Amino acid sequence: MSAARSLASCIFCKIVKGDIPSFKLIETEHSFSFLDIGPLSKGHALIIPKDHTEKMHELPDEYLTDVLPIAKKIANAQGLENYNILQNNGRIAHQEVDHVHFHVIPKPQASDDEGLVVGWPAKQPPKADLEQLHKDIIGKL
Amino acid sequence: MSAARSLASCIFCKIVKGDIPSFKLIETEHSFSFLDIGPLSKGHALIIPKDHTEKMHELPDEYLTDVLPIAKKIANAQGLENYNILQNNGRIAHQEVDHVHFHVIPKPQASDDEGLVVGWPAKQPPKADLEQLHKDIIGKL
Repeated sequence: MSAARSLASCIFCKIVKGDIPSFKLIETEHSFSFLDIGPLSKGHALIIPKDHTEKMHELPDEYLTDVLPIAKKIANAQGLENYNILQNNGRIAHQEVDHVHFHVIPKPQASDDEGLVVGWPAKQPPKADLEQLHKDIIGKL
Repeated sequence: MSAARSLASCIFCKIVKGDIPSFKLIETEHSFSFLDIGPLSKGHALIIPKDHTEKMHELPDEYLTDVLPIAKKIANAQGLENYNILQNNGRIAHQEVDHVHFHVIPKPQASDDEGLVVGWPAKQPPKADLEQLHKDIIGKL
């Protein structure tokens, strides 16, 4: 296991270090969680791995395994029943800070006014296309 | 560690058992992953814990820790750079099958035609409200 990477100019690395104050929730060896100050809904929280990487697939596994048990604790502490877990990679996928972060976003009501708003442009690809894609991905796993 | 729960009528439990065929990607002791046949974009995959629970916060930690390293492998196998990890809890939060599942959704282009469409109704709550909320949550963690 290597030491956590850090980037001096990164706002989330500064929060982890305590150089920028935050409403801290849970901190572990590998993760730091806190309230989002621009929440989509009351209780919106962020969980960030302490290792500075831009995208999820770049993180060592010890950081990845730590995240969801923290999300569970945050959901349970708030008694959440309706909520989304979201992690965005890349600007076009709505990533706004280039340090991996997982959102826990309560969905208090079925409207677009609060919480994550989800659009779902589902496709119905031909079975042959899925078979070929499956073969391609399996070959690279 | 207790045995994985299963629900006879659950479509995802049937997929885990092999009673319904799927385009399987990675299977571990705790998880099963496969291609979504109604994808938002090419390569959209699902990762499901083998334990049948409706919501994320009900899952034992050994299932939660297993998920993200699998998501990483699926993202890397596809060479993804832009993508979303999403897990929905509750019908109003867009959960459609009542067995916990994590989506890996490629975002191939910056349009609403493919991939997850994200709406972000951010608020700017007064600092005092965040302080009170923080105190409340901390007290329950």
